[in-house]
Amino acid sequence: MEKRKPRTLSGFMELLPAPQAQMERMMQILRETYELYGFSPLDTPLIEASDVLLAKGGGETEKQVYRFLKGDTDIALRFDLTVPLAKYVALHANDLCFPFRRYQIGKVYRGERAQRGRFREFYQADIDIIGDGKLGIINEAEIPSIIYRIFRRFGLKRFVIRVNNRKILSGFYAMLGLAARAGDIMRVVDKLDKIGAQKVRAALCEDGLSPAQAEEILKLTAISGSPAAVLRELEQWRGRDELFDLGLSELAAVTQHLSAFGVPQENFAVDLTIARGLDYYTGTVYETTLLDYPEIGSVCSGGRYDNLAEYYTDRQLPGVGISIGLTRLFYVLSEQGLLNSELLCAPADCLILPMTKEYESAIALATALREAGVRTQIYAEEKKFKAKITYADRVGIPYVIFLGEDELTQNVCTVKNLRTGEQLRLSQEETAILIRDGAAQMSAGAVILEK
Amino acid sequence: MEKRKPRTLSGFMELLPAPQAQMERMMQILRETYELYGFSPLDTPLIEASDVLLAKGGGETEKQVYRFLKGDTDIALRFDLTVPLAKYVALHANDLCFPFRRYQIGKVYRGERAQRGRFREFYQADIDIIGDGKLGIINEAEIPSIIYRIFRRFGLKRFVIRVNNRKILSGFYAMLGLAARAGDIMRVVDKLDKIGAQKVRAALCEDGLSPAQAEEILKLTAISGSPAAVLRELEQWRGRDELFDLGLSELAAVTQHLSAFGVPQENFAVDLTIARGLDYYTGTVYETTLLDYPEIGSVCSGGRYDNLAEYYTDRQLPGVGISIGLTRLFYVLSEQGLLNSELLCAPADCLILPMTKEYESAIALATALREAGVRTQIYAEEKKFKAKITYADRVGIPYVIFLGEDELTQNVCTVKNLRTGEQLRLSQEETAILIRDGAAQMSAGAVILEK
Repeated sequence: MEKRKPRTLSGFMELLPAPQAQMERMMQILRETYELYGFSPLDTPLIEASDVLLAKGGGETEKQVYRFLKGDTDIALRFDLTVPLAKYVALHANDLCFPFRRYQIGKVYRGERAQRGRFREFYQADIDIIGDGKLGIINEAEIPSIIYRIFRRFGLKRFVIRVNNRKILSGFYAMLGLAARAGDIMRVVDKLDKIGAQKVRAALCEDGLSPAQAEEILKLTAISGSPAAVLRELEQWRGRDELFDLGLSELAAVTQHLSAFGVPQENFAVDLTIARGLDYYTGTVYETTLLDYPEIGSVCSGGRYDNLAEYYTDRQLPGVGISIGLTRLFYVLSEQGLLNSELLCAPADCLILPMTKEYESAIALATALREAGVRTQIYAEEKKFKAKITYADRVGIPYVIFLGEDELTQNVCTVKNLRTGEQLRLSQEETAILIRDGAAQMSAGAVILEK
Repeated sequence: MEKRKPRTLSGFMELLPAPQAQMERMMQILRETYELYGFSPLDTPLIEASDVLLAKGGGETEKQVYRFLKGDTDIALRFDLTVPLAKYVALHANDLCFPFRRYQIGKVYRGERAQRGRFREFYQADIDIIGDGKLGIINEAEIPSIIYRIFRRFGLKRFVIRVNNRKILSGFYAMLGLAARAGDIMRVVDKLDKIGAQKVRAALCEDGLSPAQAEEILKLTAISGSPAAVLRELEQWRGRDELFDLGLSELAAVTQHLSAFGVPQENFAVDLTIARGLDYYTGTVYETTLLDYPEIGSVCSGGRYDNLAEYYTDRQLPGVGISIGLTRLFYVLSEQGLLNSELLCAPADCLILPMTKEYESAIALATALREAGVRTQIYAEEKKFKAKITYADRVGIPYVIFLGEDELTQNVCTVKNLRTGEQLRLSQEETAILIRDGAAQMSAGAVILEK
């Protein structure tokens, strides 16, 4: 038979079992943490009608969308989890209760230019809180505090959640007589990290701002220091623009609540350079950067918006949300060698090796161990003893149980810890406890070990 | 702004939060059970190169595939999880250890005619064990025993895993001088359940079989009774065809091991009518039916194959696997009203209602409860008291914690169980224990309650 060369498309992540086990751990932490904070898991189709998915239209994203015809139907793969959420909430609004808190961990598709570390299929892990008409400011502090918990549980310490408020920027531009240009200016200012102050100034002037206006805008973004210091400095403009004042009060409230939610000073900052390119955001905005890897940009971004589903419904649905680019984050951590290789990544905690032709006892033992919560494989292939041990070793299974004539007669297990070489003769119950506790210990560390 | 009517494509399941919580429970049971049996989770792209995905070519499936161009690349959405597994194993064979045990729970796509209860996007939950060259027969019993555990943990009791062996059928047809026609005959016999013996006989004769041959074939499929009885009856043909004899020995071994794996008599049967349409299977085959809903057909099927990746590699990779059609199963169970509505499906175990303007205490309490494993929401919207209780009630959150002046001064919580109406004043630690235990109890039942 002619063979087809097996391959995986470029830009699509496909992991071997051990790294996949690490990825699953991270997903499990995401699910558990989101659920502790009272979010409902949501699952929406990967395919939507193109006119629904692209209701907003335009923009860079639309060019990257996987869009095609199936029969007569014009359909497309989702490119983020926000648009499907907007559709979901608009469609099911009468069956939902507000504030509606949902999380979704799912794949999205963007046909970006293939490039190392750029993915065309990637996981986003989103949380959003949607209000009906109104939504309390406290939610804007709770959202980043969840990210803080998750990153800490991943094992990360050297990260900063940077917070800003677009009302402050818009209000400030209004003071300069540039209220109508706020969106454009923010898109330029948002590039500050990438292109630097010089080029931003030039770009602003090119857009028709006076050098003095550009200077003022850069002066604002240059304010830095502790959250308290930044807020104090911003007070000098209070009273000159309503929107600015509101933004400043919101930012102060978010900052205060963030501390109450237990986010320590070293993991968050007020950063007036953060604008987020999207018009969509109307208040608080977030970006999260890894201190040792600033070059990879924000690994988790989001913010407050006033109208989640404006393309689908007249109902005003304000919300706040944040999204982790999970595939990219995993890729970067893995490339940097930060995945904790000590962690148990094998598919099983123990491997039973029947040393006789009688399998019933091995099966009974496996059943008992599994009922005790021990992940168990039986090795039932006819191979040499050495090949069986090599299998356990290569897969990383830490415990091997030998079941020979002796063990069967005496109703015991000979258990060998392949990591230490220690070998013991134990009863079935003792075996279960030994392996369960040992495996739990080998799984107890964080997924990420910062250098 | 002009509005776009929000809608979800037909044939795509999209659940409200409460049923989604039930679906998540079922997925969690799948993951946990597969892992107890030592399977690695796997995640492959939803999109593959069309020539890779459709290497086998032909067949009903190919017509249903979502296939399209993105730029110059001819790509397609996976229509099952077996072909991506074959590609994965062929591609990564040198990095994998055999037997390779993997599970995958993922969405697949088939553009079937839209019809009630038919899905175009649906979850399959697959397990497979792949050997390198050879694979022990014990695996063919372990696979259905895992399905047994899962269905029992779902809450199902009235189901039967039906087992057959295609070697018995092929060998039997060979005895009738029909060795070369085995595949075609099996495809006809496979319809027995749907069209009945009369029509199968007619179809066989139409295909050129003599009435006597058709009669013999139907006589074989008509053999029924306990596994032991069926096996006994099959013994009459032993010694006449090698393949038949091998199949009979395999079936006897699988039957024996199934008992050792703890599958009780009432949940499995030897059923000689099961052929499975696919040529792919070469030995043991499985189907699983719900006794009270025979009309929905098999909810979980699979079998033994000799060449997983023959389209990609010369390496012989025999295996055995089974697939649960999860979306369809969930749909049917839900339609039949079998989902256990007593189970806690709310996104949170408790809702904290701050009764003062001071949120810091509510936030501190929420943090403590979450650290104790209690899924907690804070209700921070400015609404009337009644609206807040209505929210908890509608979402199904069982416990509400009132935090007023009194509680703050005395450092206690007033906790109300909305299901019983009981209200208590407790310390923070007592509150955490009460709610955690209560919520655990409300989540303890099975997802499915058979009538």
